[in-house]
Amino acid sequence: MNIIDIINKKRMKQSLTDEEIKYVIDNYLSGVIKDYQMSSLLMAIVLNGMNEEETYSLTKYMANSGDKLDLNFLGDNVVDKHSTGGVGDKTTLIVAPIVASCGVKVAKMSGRGLGHTGGTIDKLESIPGLVVNLEKERFLNQVNEIGVAITSQTENIALADKKIYALRDVTGTVESIPLIASSIMSKKIALGTKKLVLDIKVGKGALIKNLDDAKTLANLMINIGKQNNIKVVCILTNMDIPLGNNIGNSLEIEEVIDILKENKQGSLTDLCIEISSQMVSLGLNIDYQQAKEKVLESLSSKKAYNKFLQLIEYQEGSLDKLPKANSKYQIKSITNGYLIDIDAYKLGVLSMHLGAGRENKEDKIDYSSGIIIHKNINDYINSGDVLMTLYTDKLITNIDNTIFKISSNKLKNNPLILDIIK
Amino acid sequence: MNIIDIINKKRMKQSLTDEEIKYVIDNYLSGVIKDYQMSSLLMAIVLNGMNEEETYSLTKYMANSGDKLDLNFLGDNVVDKHSTGGVGDKTTLIVAPIVASCGVKVAKMSGRGLGHTGGTIDKLESIPGLVVNLEKERFLNQVNEIGVAITSQTENIALADKKIYALRDVTGTVESIPLIASSIMSKKIALGTKKLVLDIKVGKGALIKNLDDAKTLANLMINIGKQNNIKVVCILTNMDIPLGNNIGNSLEIEEVIDILKENKQGSLTDLCIEISSQMVSLGLNIDYQQAKEKVLESLSSKKAYNKFLQLIEYQEGSLDKLPKANSKYQIKSITNGYLIDIDAYKLGVLSMHLGAGRENKEDKIDYSSGIIIHKNINDYINSGDVLMTLYTDKLITNIDNTIFKISSNKLKNNPLILDIIK
Repeated sequence: MNIIDIINKKRMKQSLTDEEIKYVIDNYLSGVIKDYQMSSLLMAIVLNGMNEEETYSLTKYMANSGDKLDLNFLGDNVVDKHSTGGVGDKTTLIVAPIVASCGVKVAKMSGRGLGHTGGTIDKLESIPGLVVNLEKERFLNQVNEIGVAITSQTENIALADKKIYALRDVTGTVESIPLIASSIMSKKIALGTKKLVLDIKVGKGALIKNLDDAKTLANLMINIGKQNNIKVVCILTNMDIPLGNNIGNSLEIEEVIDILKENKQGSLTDLCIEISSQMVSLGLNIDYQQAKEKVLESLSSKKAYNKFLQLIEYQEGSLDKLPKANSKYQIKSITNGYLIDIDAYKLGVLSMHLGAGRENKEDKIDYSSGIIIHKNINDYINSGDVLMTLYTDKLITNIDNTIFKISSNKLKNNPLILDIIK
Repeated sequence: MNIIDIINKKRMKQSLTDEEIKYVIDNYLSGVIKDYQMSSLLMAIVLNGMNEEETYSLTKYMANSGDKLDLNFLGDNVVDKHSTGGVGDKTTLIVAPIVASCGVKVAKMSGRGLGHTGGTIDKLESIPGLVVNLEKERFLNQVNEIGVAITSQTENIALADKKIYALRDVTGTVESIPLIASSIMSKKIALGTKKLVLDIKVGKGALIKNLDDAKTLANLMINIGKQNNIKVVCILTNMDIPLGNNIGNSLEIEEVIDILKENKQGSLTDLCIEISSQMVSLGLNIDYQQAKEKVLESLSSKKAYNKFLQLIEYQEGSLDKLPKANSKYQIKSITNGYLIDIDAYKLGVLSMHLGAGRENKEDKIDYSSGIIIHKNINDYINSGDVLMTLYTDKLITNIDNTIFKISSNKLKNNPLILDIIK
C-alpha cells in the first residue's frame, strides 16, 4: 500500500477500503505521509466525496488516534452538545447550566476561537480567576457533584483529527460534508459521548450554505452515531439571524447573565430553550414537551442561574471583576427603515479588529473589547438611532457601513429553527 | 490576495486570473506558499481543470521563473523534440544525428530517468568518457559547429516548473492535461525553442490513456506554441507497441548503433524516421515528402551514423569500451502462438530491478544491465523459444510471467502512428 496509489484512487473517484483509510491515518500521524500528500488527498475527497462506509472508517480511525474517555460511571443522563460554529455563539454557557439544573449531566470540552471570534474557553477566561484547564479527575468529579463542568480540550483526544483539521484550515479543504461529519463525530466518540445534540448552522457565512447540505450532514452524523451507539439529535438553525446582541468575551458573559438572571428574550434565548429541551428529553428519556416545561421552569425560577453561579464558583471565577473597556464608540444609523440583515461575518471581523479575537494564533485577546448590537431584525430604525456600541482600547477608524441592511419593508418568514432531524 | 482564497476559487471551479497565477508561482518559488497548499491547489486543478487562458498564464510564469536561452544566433533551422515518456525510448539518440546530418540543428537538453528506466542522459553516460554536462558556451559552440549537442538540463531553467513537477510526482497530481502541457512548454520557451516536434505517447501505461485526451493535449500545446512564436508538430504514437528490442543503458546504445549503422528495421526505426522527417520539414521549411527522402538517404548512406560518431567524439565518449554485464539469463516461452502484447510497464520495472534504473533518487545505475527482447508483436512463438535475455550482475529470481501475452490469433490493426496534428 502506498499513499500515491491511494490519492490516485480517490482522484479517479473510487472508494477507499477500510485498510487504506487506516493506512492513511496511521501513517499521517506518524509522519510517513507528508502534509503535502495529505492535503492533495483531502482536496480529492472534498471534490470527489466519500461514501458512508469510507466516512465510518475515517471517523473510527480518527477516534482511535488518541486517548479516550469513559463516562459510563456518570450514568446514562450525560448529554453533550456541539455547534458547527457561528459568530457570538455563547449557547454552551447558557445551555449547560439550564440542563444541569434539570438533572442532565454536561461534561463539556470546548475549544478556543478559530476564525474571528473567541471560543467558549476564551469567553470563560474573561472571568478573572476562572480555571479552564481542569485535570481529568477534577473535571469528572465536578460533573458528578454539580452536574456540569467545562474545560479546554485535552491535547490527546483524536490526535489525527487535530492534525488533519489544522491542515484543512490552511489548504482550502474545510468545506466537505464527510470531512466535517467525521471530524466532529470522531471527537465525540473519543470523549465517550452517548447522547448528543448538534446545532448545525446554515447560511451564507456558515460552513454549510443551504438546507439540503445541512440535511445530508445531519443524516450522516446520525448514522455515524448509530454505528457507535450514540443517540444524535440535529437542530438545523438559521445562521443569518444574529444570536443575541453581544459579541466579545466579557460582553458575552454579561449577556449570558442577562438571559439566565434577567430572563432577557430574543432569538438567542429561543435557541437555547430549543437545544436545552432536546438535551433534557434525551438525557432523562422524557418527551420533548415535558422536557421543555422543565427548561422553562428552571429559567423562570432562576435554578439555571444558580447552577451557572455554582459552575463559576467551582471553577474559581469572580464574576464581580469582569473586565470593562475604557473607550466606547456609538455607531448611528444615517437612514430610516426596517433592519432586515446584520452581517455576522463582518461583525466577527470587526470584533476581531477591536481585540476580541485572534488575527494570528499567537495573538492575545483583549477580553473587555467587543460590540453590543442595540437593534434586532425587523426593528424600525430612525436616522440617528444608535445601531451598535463598540468597546475597545484600540483606536478605531473606517467602520464598514455595510454591516446593517435597512429597507422600507419588513423581512417575512425568517425562522430561527429550520428543521430538527433525529 | 492569499493562497486559501485562490484554492477555494479553483475548488469551486472558477477561473484564476493572470495576477492570481503569478502570485501562486512567485510565492511558491519563494516559499511563502507551502508545499501542502500547492498540492491542494494542484489536485483542485487536476479535478476541476484550467481553461486555455489560465494555462497560458501558468506556462508564462513558469517559463520566466529561471534562466533563459537565446538560440537566435544559430539561425532558424534549429528544431527541438520532446517525448512524453516511455520505456526504452531512445529516439533522441537516433533522431538527433539523423536530422543534424540533414542540415537541421539540434541543441538538446535532456533529463535523467524518472520512473523505472534511465533517461537519455543516463544512456549517454553508459558510454565511457562521455561528457554529459556541457557548459553553455561549449554546448552552443558544438551545435554551431557540428549541428548537434546533447547535454543534461541546466539547473536554472524554469525553476517553478522543476519545483512543481517534483511535488506532482509525490502527490498523485501528474495526470492533468493543462499541467502536462504547461510543464513541457514552459521549459521549451525558456530554452529558446522556435520549432518543436512532440511525440505524445498514448496507451494504458502512458500519462495519456486515450486518443481524445492526446488530441486535446496536442491542440493545447500547439496553441501555447502559437502564443509564444513556437511552431509545434505533434505525433501521437501508440505506447502499447514496444519501441525496439533493447532496454537498459548500454544495451540501448548498441541498438542505436544497430539502427544507424546496420539499418535494423522495426517500429523504433519507423518512429525515428517519422519524427526526423517532421523535424527536417520544419527546420528546412520543405515539405514532408522531400524531408522524408532526405532522412532515408541519410540513413542508407550512413551520414546519420557518421554524425552520431562525431557527436560521441565531440563529447569525448569511447564507444569501443561499452560496458557488458557478466551474467545473462534466457527466458523461454512455455506455450505456442502469436505474440500479441508485451507489457512495457512491467518490463520497465524488471529492468529497474536488474539495475538499469533507479528505485530511489540516490541509487546508482548499473549501465551494463538490461533486457533484450527477441520477438516482436505478431511473431509466431514456439514453446521453448527464447523470449528475452536478461543482462545483470544481480541474482534474479521470480520473473513476472505475465509480461508476454501469446494468443492463437494475430493482432489486427495496431498502428504505431495514431495521428499527426499541426
